[in-house]
Amino acid sequence: MGTRTPSTCVIGAGLSGLVATKALRERGLPVETFEMSDRIGGNWAFKNPNRRSSAYRSLHIDTSKERLGFSDFPMPAHYPDFPSHEQVHAYFESYVDRFRLAESIRFETEVRHATRLEGGGWELELTGGGRRRCDALIVANGHHWDARWPEPAFPGEFAGRQIHSHEYIDPTEPIDMRGKRILVVGIGNSAVDIASELSRRDLAEAAFISTRRGAYVIPKYVFGRPIDTVMRTMPHVPLGLQKSLARGLMRITVGRMENYGLPTPDHKLLEAHPTVSSELLVRLGSGDLAAKPDIRRLDGAEVEFADGSRERIDVIIYATGYKITFPFFDEEFISAPDNRLPLFKRMIKPGVDDLIMIGFAQAIPTLFPFCERQARWAAAYLAGDYALPDIAAMQATIRADEKRDLKHFVKSKRHTMQVDTAVYEWGLDAEESAGRARAAAGSGRRFTPGND
Amino acid sequence: MGTRTPSTCVIGAGLSGLVATKALRERGLPVETFEMSDRIGGNWAFKNPNRRSSAYRSLHIDTSKERLGFSDFPMPAHYPDFPSHEQVHAYFESYVDRFRLAESIRFETEVRHATRLEGGGWELELTGGGRRRCDALIVANGHHWDARWPEPAFPGEFAGRQIHSHEYIDPTEPIDMRGKRILVVGIGNSAVDIASELSRRDLAEAAFISTRRGAYVIPKYVFGRPIDTVMRTMPHVPLGLQKSLARGLMRITVGRMENYGLPTPDHKLLEAHPTVSSELLVRLGSGDLAAKPDIRRLDGAEVEFADGSRERIDVIIYATGYKITFPFFDEEFISAPDNRLPLFKRMIKPGVDDLIMIGFAQAIPTLFPFCERQARWAAAYLAGDYALPDIAAMQATIRADEKRDLKHFVKSKRHTMQVDTAVYEWGLDAEESAGRARAAAGSGRRFTPGND
Repeated sequence: MGTRTPSTCVIGAGLSGLVATKALRERGLPVETFEMSDRIGGNWAFKNPNRRSSAYRSLHIDTSKERLGFSDFPMPAHYPDFPSHEQVHAYFESYVDRFRLAESIRFETEVRHATRLEGGGWELELTGGGRRRCDALIVANGHHWDARWPEPAFPGEFAGRQIHSHEYIDPTEPIDMRGKRILVVGIGNSAVDIASELSRRDLAEAAFISTRRGAYVIPKYVFGRPIDTVMRTMPHVPLGLQKSLARGLMRITVGRMENYGLPTPDHKLLEAHPTVSSELLVRLGSGDLAAKPDIRRLDGAEVEFADGSRERIDVIIYATGYKITFPFFDEEFISAPDNRLPLFKRMIKPGVDDLIMIGFAQAIPTLFPFCERQARWAAAYLAGDYALPDIAAMQATIRADEKRDLKHFVKSKRHTMQVDTAVYEWGLDAEESAGRARAAAGSGRRFTPGND
Repeated sequence: MGTRTPSTCVIGAGLSGLVATKALRERGLPVETFEMSDRIGGNWAFKNPNRRSSAYRSLHIDTSKERLGFSDFPMPAHYPDFPSHEQVHAYFESYVDRFRLAESIRFETEVRHATRLEGGGWELELTGGGRRRCDALIVANGHHWDARWPEPAFPGEFAGRQIHSHEYIDPTEPIDMRGKRILVVGIGNSAVDIASELSRRDLAEAAFISTRRGAYVIPKYVFGRPIDTVMRTMPHVPLGLQKSLARGLMRITVGRMENYGLPTPDHKLLEAHPTVSSELLVRLGSGDLAAKPDIRRLDGAEVEFADGSRERIDVIIYATGYKITFPFFDEEFISAPDNRLPLFKRMIKPGVDDLIMIGFAQAIPTLFPFCERQARWAAAYLAGDYALPDIAAMQATIRADEKRDLKHFVKSKRHTMQVDTAVYEWGLDAEESAGRARAAAGSGRRFTPGND
């Protein structure tokens, strides 16, 4: 086995690409990060020219700054509890400055295709015809940019305009919603933010939110503190007890969803990614926004709902989530049909040791510390301090983790990658210790350039 | 003492004038109600041409429909929990229709002056030179229309625009706030509604809320139910216990106001009219709105605050409340300096038996049932079923009630007329029984036309 330092390429300079780049640089590993855009930040770069940002003008992250900040680089003290997208982006920029990450980033360079070489290693085809070879590839292209439209599409023809929330900027962009009758489809965070915003009386003529499934809409604050600083999963405490406490809090603060006209959730609290909004329930209670069940049929200028009610609608906004796609891979190599992407510790496809995926999870409360933890693991692995278990053991771990997570979470395309960061970190800490012991003992699969 | 049926004039066809008119008609008492405007509804007639409405476009009442509706005329079942001003107004209109109140209302007729006659009774001077005599006068002209500006005015000169919340319609009327730097002064319901609305990211460039005093900002919902249906004062239960329960709920749902940058209230929860908003705290926590202490000085394009901080400000909106004024009375006859208006049961000035004030309170949770209860009392009194106690007893009651209410409520111009409707009704029920007994026994001061 060779001992030369491996070279790594990273696809994307958003959250996950940045923490990966930083972790590798810190270990003295050569890294080159390719970013399609002229700027860092990916999803958090509002109006990103690479069209990969889903940020709308009023977006604030729904995780508190206390839990967002990276372990060695806290968010500025003057930031509000729930920073805006501009503040998140400015924070990333100062992170890049502080750790001199720009040296490793090639801007306006898209990875058109990534080909795995015989015997391991990668060849990348770049925009402009450039090519690059590397020993390891880190995929950090994000999973909140490729709009998922309802599948199958709703029957019927709609005469108005339809956009996906990915395109939504503000009440007048890309569509001037003033005086319009708006329907937002979905019950995730974008759906409730956009529906709350558009239901303002000086704006839309009427606003509706249609959802097939129920969701728990939890407030941003309890006890005067951001809810994610109060309700933290403790991996050592029985989950049933934690769920009971959370349910008690929710009963007091928001009560039953049905009281606001929303459908009964088909799962229990904390068994799906919660929707965080302190505004939605009050907008519904004021009647400015009305809850509707699933769409049954589009019918010209009208929409018919599952309960038989009909509304005249001018604009439909589908806040129906995103697909996980890898435009630079051949589909038969790796893809995520129905958003299913089974990976060892959500990073490694067993048998492909030189490919690391960072950030492919719906992490509670947020991806920030999750990605940072994954990146530290990746650096330890690429530096040779950690050895993977064998393929059968990895597959067994995937099954066990999936079973544990599915016990927590309801099944839907939105929840295929649901993880609780605290639980994940707890498991990854144990796995990393085991892998370091394997590496020290010379067992397991240490990363070695060209090792296949 | 005469026995003829007394005639009554009512000034104003808003909430309090309408319930008074209805109560008198129901007792078969002749009543004529003068309304300046071409429509009923007063404060609840958005853009009322009489300029007496303080409603803004996005206004929703902060009391739930369950507690708003009149005892014999509930709000429509399809209304949302917190109706809009249009819905409240439409409800008043159907109330007028249902009880044929329009027959008694003289529209576009302002009472220019009301003169008490020698020996009792009233002469009214109307617009257009008309005059009207009546035995009793009901004053129902409201107390949310005469803007109170800060007194004394803040030192310094301000180069931007300044309006009172009374004039505020929406983010573009009367001032286009888009791209502006806005300062809202106050912490009452209008202040927090307007500050929340204007702090939207697609609107103001920056938004601030300045408050001298703290307030408890309570949410619209607890347990999934409108808070006023859960936290109802029970006059028979020790107030201390009720306050403890309420404080516990608030600790869970909103926590300490200081966590949001607001000043520490100088009173305990429920000792002042609460501010109801589910939006303010989240707007502050997102940083789109920033809390500031009192204004120290206006300085051209800037405002200096008590903590020494300065901000460039384009528009100041003073949501600093209202004065109680009676333009139709000579000031020496009755006035409310510093909003102090001591009245027997908040209705009768001792010694002036033929003048009844309706609606002069800051009632918790709302004026609607409060005014209705006052109107029923007024009808019983004018019909001769109830006899007032003597003047000394009335004055003793005023002092006792004030002492009880001041024990509950902190002193400020906003809280001179603070009453808890449940406590008030409890006391008025007892007083009405006593007065009916006096009337039956021939003691006390029964209303008799011309009796002075």
